[in-house]
Amino acid sequence: MANPVQEFNDVFPVLADELIAHLRSIHIPENAIEWFDRSMRHNVLGGKMNRGLTVAETLRILKRGEELSKEEIFKANLLGWCIEWLQAFFLVSDDIMDNSKTRRGQPCWYRVGGVGMVAINDAFILESAIYFFLKKHFKKDAYYVELIELFHETTYQTELGQLLDLITAPEDDIDLTRFSIEKHAFIVRYKTAYYSFYLPVALAMHMAGVKDEAAFKQAEGILLPLGEYFQVQDDYLDCYGKPEVIGKIGTDIEDNKCSWLINQALDKATPEQVKVLHENYGRRDEVNVIAVKEVYNEIGVEGLFKAYEEESYTRLNALIAKIDHPLLSQDVFTSFMKRIYKRTK
Amino acid sequence: MANPVQEFNDVFPVLADELIAHLRSIHIPENAIEWFDRSMRHNVLGGKMNRGLTVAETLRILKRGEELSKEEIFKANLLGWCIEWLQAFFLVSDDIMDNSKTRRGQPCWYRVGGVGMVAINDAFILESAIYFFLKKHFKKDAYYVELIELFHETTYQTELGQLLDLITAPEDDIDLTRFSIEKHAFIVRYKTAYYSFYLPVALAMHMAGVKDEAAFKQAEGILLPLGEYFQVQDDYLDCYGKPEVIGKIGTDIEDNKCSWLINQALDKATPEQVKVLHENYGRRDEVNVIAVKEVYNEIGVEGLFKAYEEESYTRLNALIAKIDHPLLSQDVFTSFMKRIYKRTK
Repeated sequence: MANPVQEFNDVFPVLADELIAHLRSIHIPENAIEWFDRSMRHNVLGGKMNRGLTVAETLRILKRGEELSKEEIFKANLLGWCIEWLQAFFLVSDDIMDNSKTRRGQPCWYRVGGVGMVAINDAFILESAIYFFLKKHFKKDAYYVELIELFHETTYQTELGQLLDLITAPEDDIDLTRFSIEKHAFIVRYKTAYYSFYLPVALAMHMAGVKDEAAFKQAEGILLPLGEYFQVQDDYLDCYGKPEVIGKIGTDIEDNKCSWLINQALDKATPEQVKVLHENYGRRDEVNVIAVKEVYNEIGVEGLFKAYEEESYTRLNALIAKIDHPLLSQDVFTSFMKRIYKRTK
Repeated sequence: MANPVQEFNDVFPVLADELIAHLRSIHIPENAIEWFDRSMRHNVLGGKMNRGLTVAETLRILKRGEELSKEEIFKANLLGWCIEWLQAFFLVSDDIMDNSKTRRGQPCWYRVGGVGMVAINDAFILESAIYFFLKKHFKKDAYYVELIELFHETTYQTELGQLLDLITAPEDDIDLTRFSIEKHAFIVRYKTAYYSFYLPVALAMHMAGVKDEAAFKQAEGILLPLGEYFQVQDDYLDCYGKPEVIGKIGTDIEDNKCSWLINQALDKATPEQVKVLHENYGRRDEVNVIAVKEVYNEIGVEGLFKAYEEESYTRLNALIAKIDHPLLSQDVFTSFMKRIYKRTK
């Protein structure tokens, strides 16, 4: 069997060529084609591609070892690339909204010379490419409409999560009374879990011929909490992870992020500790960051996370054990679990 | 018969309520619902609504006087509102990219207090609403997929036109050698004509049960040149229209716009005149603007426009007279013609 990563990577140039060939066919001037190509390569490539790889991986599990045809592998990987295109659409615009400097070790697209706010329209074009690919490759499939609707709904969910995140934790207007554990849970599920966890599995389920709404509901019932657990780990690692392992120096405290840690701390803090958090969270100075981390230590936020991690592990495994739909397989979910339980990066 | 404008306006609150009810059902916190509602009202309402009104108007003509049912009127107007939502998505983001100050007599959304770059995500949400409405109201219709694909393709076309416009005429990097009559034609067709002229008619055709690709091709063959003529008028009025009639003071010269006028001037200019244009176009000073307008006068750009207008009128009427598809009606296109020929605003 070929290497799944190689199979996945081989699909990108095919898709890039399809887009460019279409642009040539409508006679858009060459300077626009060059720009388009540069934006696509800068923004779609260079990530870990976990979401993209998951579609074919899940399809293999759902087909229970039956060998996939070349066409099935291509189409599953194409759907995986559509998630990567979707993510590129989100990241290009998130970076503008967050005023970020770098992404995946290079300047954010809007900070590349000469790009600026044109990046907003480039983000739109990245999104449009998804539906171009779906029409070209899935129009004749019985589940074509379901794929489109799934991308629409996931996009909308992610945007709603992003909205709540942006207005709850704006960088320039710090007000911790807006934070809450409930808001954190909504943001995490909508902004991250739907497109990162549910979407790749649901796409594979459509390809595997699953039609029963109950199967999708079972999958969602485990993938959303899994995604939530994953994001809480992210929040934890931002503060307590080793920079040399996670590959960046966390700045959630400085950035006024509505993170799991601050919400736990606010929930458990004494009035004095709450005061310290209000006075120091979301500020750039090192003394402020240290003050926040001291309160985290007093409250024992690290311990709360360890307990949450164990509780999640037990709870999620129990959820997985209850998966009984004949068209699903518990292996889909245990493979996620194995990858993320106690991860350090 | 009820007033078509009233019928159209009556649909907005129904749609707004549907979106809000859905948000309540997923328990998004109330501060996000308030924000969403404010963004929608600020950005979707307040325009001339010509595009939106055209769907039901066209459907009436295509049905050849047969009275439309209440449901048909509602659904045609709903599709009209989807165009207005699409336009809101474009305008919110265009205003950021163009660094605009006001829109429809009020501050651009991103300039409203506290909004800023969150407006980018608000624009995305406006786009997502379209597919929410289509699924809710058209899923059972035989032409549901066609509606979705039409919105996708029109969105993509508009984005491609916007891309070429942005990179051909950036405000901060003036280089008239990038301009050309061919680029102007591409920009106009893709950025404006598809969504403003073809989209409303094509939507009505789907509702009227038209399936034959040839009918859509005939409609496109007249609506794109019509849209091009409309946009050339816009470019002309920006420079030569009466501010008190068009409701604004044109700034295409200052803004380095790839307008029909500058492209005609560049095409006809002597080397000396080209030099004056290069030295003065895209600059904020009044002396620069006057210098450009002097060259326009020397070349007789106004006369070129009058000739273009007459030639377009004849050419477009000839195109309309050739419309012979049994499912179309020439009246659809003559009603556009009547509205725009020799318009002064």
